[in-house]
Amino acid sequence: MSFEPDVLQGFVQRYLDTVVSGSADEVAALYAEDATLEDPVGGGEVHIGRKAIAGFYNNISGAEVKTELLTFRAGGHEAAFLFAITVGGAMRIEPIEIMTFNADGLITSMKAYWGPQNLTQL
Amino acid sequence: MSFEPDVLQGFVQRYLDTVVSGSADEVAALYAEDATLEDPVGGGEVHIGRKAIAGFYNNISGAEVKTELLTFRAGGHEAAFLFAITVGGAMRIEPIEIMTFNADGLITSMKAYWGPQNLTQL
Repeated sequence: MSFEPDVLQGFVQRYLDTVVSGSADEVAALYAEDATLEDPVGGGEVHIGRKAIAGFYNNISGAEVKTELLTFRAGGHEAAFLFAITVGGAMRIEPIEIMTFNADGLITSMKAYWGPQNLTQL
Repeated sequence: MSFEPDVLQGFVQRYLDTVVSGSADEVAALYAEDATLEDPVGGGEVHIGRKAIAGFYNNISGAEVKTELLTFRAGGHEAAFLFAITVGGAMRIEPIEIMTFNADGLITSMKAYWGPQNLTQL
């Protein structure tokens, strides 16, 4: 299974837009039912399934969030990208994320690589 | 298992330096015996084991290669990074790579995300 790079970039942009303007449930709806989410990688917690994933995004709902795609790479049914997320005008984080997608374009796994050294207080 | 970010960045820098100045066998020696390598992701071929991995790097040995680490992210025992590789002064590619490491600091998996759209003829 494989997608054209611009299709994968569209999936990622839709995700980043939904993180900004959608509810936690709307972001979780972009994931497959049995998807996994690890953010940050190495943080010791992997969220499994759409309900747990909605819980994760619920943590940032309510804050004013902005996102910006900085660098995008595609491969097969996977995407790798660097982006910026600004939360509440108070902090900016620039993670590298890896996402895999199923044939329906739903996210089957997400891993976010970042640490305190990639967080800027604004 | 987890490494400090600067330790992981050291592993990655050593890898990028060895790609420049080492032989294919020397690069392969940075990988665990049963490591996997997929470059580019989605290209349909996964190299398994140090011997197959040496064969992969043998393809670029002989050319003058330069590498530059552009963006680095760490998580647990994994690294995600954007870098540039220039081959023979003729082309420049900027992949995002994901590497995982074992307790000995050897690479257990490498995945490189890039496509023709990330290659510049010089």
